[in-house]
Amino acid sequence: MIQIFPIAGIPEVEEGADVASLILEAVASSDLELQTGDVLVVTHKVVSKAEGRFIEASDEQSYRKAVESEARAILRRRGDLVITQTHHGFICANAGVDRSNVPGERAVLLPVDPDRSAHMIRMKIQQGVGIDIPVVISDTFGRPWRRGQTDVAIGISGLEAISDHRGQPDAEGRTMEATEVAIVDEIAAAADLAMGKAARVPAAIIRGVDWRHGSARATDLVRPPQEDMFR
Amino acid sequence: MIQIFPIAGIPEVEEGADVASLILEAVASSDLELQTGDVLVVTHKVVSKAEGRFIEASDEQSYRKAVESEARAILRRRGDLVITQTHHGFICANAGVDRSNVPGERAVLLPVDPDRSAHMIRMKIQQGVGIDIPVVISDTFGRPWRRGQTDVAIGISGLEAISDHRGQPDAEGRTMEATEVAIVDEIAAAADLAMGKAARVPAAIIRGVDWRHGSARATDLVRPPQEDMFR
Repeated sequence: MIQIFPIAGIPEVEEGADVASLILEAVASSDLELQTGDVLVVTHKVVSKAEGRFIEASDEQSYRKAVESEARAILRRRGDLVITQTHHGFICANAGVDRSNVPGERAVLLPVDPDRSAHMIRMKIQQGVGIDIPVVISDTFGRPWRRGQTDVAIGISGLEAISDHRGQPDAEGRTMEATEVAIVDEIAAAADLAMGKAARVPAAIIRGVDWRHGSARATDLVRPPQEDMFR
Repeated sequence: MIQIFPIAGIPEVEEGADVASLILEAVASSDLELQTGDVLVVTHKVVSKAEGRFIEASDEQSYRKAVESEARAILRRRGDLVITQTHHGFICANAGVDRSNVPGERAVLLPVDPDRSAHMIRMKIQQGVGIDIPVVISDTFGRPWRRGQTDVAIGISGLEAISDHRGQPDAEGRTMEATEVAIVDEIAAAADLAMGKAARVPAAIIRGVDWRHGSARATDLVRPPQEDMFR
């Protein structure tokens, strides 16, 4: 059985805040506890806010300017929608620049290095509770051919990104074909079900997933250009 | 809290099998029970097998032929990999024709109408246990820009496909921008975490998700051509 616990009670995050401590405090004042085998999922927005990744976006023009400067490449444009590749390599709308749930006339950018942000949170959690808990930092991305958005992993620490079943025997004893599960993306999507969008629940604990220790980065999930048929 | 329970003990599904009954029997002989608010996720393969959607694929040539005949359109080709649009409208590799976990020299096609298959399972579950449980039929799809695969919904019955937060106030009281969560895809991805790929666990119960009753179809998730920038 898998369980997903939303972590409520995290206050609005300001620049300079210690996200790991805020999470540990919220966990301590709830009836939750972190256990070995858990994965901690944190939405990128609180991480970006803590890292001071704000930009002035009082009007459409300044927002557009922020999107352009956050984009390494522009794949498509249609009206106000720009499909971009970010400096990290992720392909998403508007270079991840986000105005929702941000106080004031500002927008929030993606963390500079979300894998490093995940690593820092993981280290602080380990210092705080003495358990090594893998961390997944999530964002909400659209998909080219399917309506609606799902949460995916943009930063990870402490686990493998892909659960690789290639070459394993299937239930028929035959070798399984292309089956590389993007397990950290499924973890991010599952956590989103517990967090909701409008409520201020920026983190969740997911328990019971068959993940593996590893040192993968979320940027490992970016399909290299030579494999990419849709850029 | 969200809970995801794998449904073990479902035997190999043969053509003509009643998937809903097999699931109810497996649930009854476990310590699980279906409750109001649950969503039932079923991998498409057992549905396809029950519907007799087998095709002879003893060699590469017959497999390729099956892929071509299941494809409404070919988007890209590279070596053995063909990115197709299926007759349903889904864009995926090899038109969903799958050889893993299939006995004999055969492959399995997608159900003819997965939304109808989901509806039939939902009706039989309701007859069996007297509760209306939404059903999601899942398959494993790749993504153009991200490595690895995730499970998505290819057939649904009894719930909305997209959880639409557009126009709702965010935690700052501002109107939320583009936030349409493809909740049935997140449900499919979450269920996959509990089912695994090699084990014979073709169904899961997911409990605690804030879904809404509705009559959406999974094909509603297919982005219409006029919105699609990457076809």
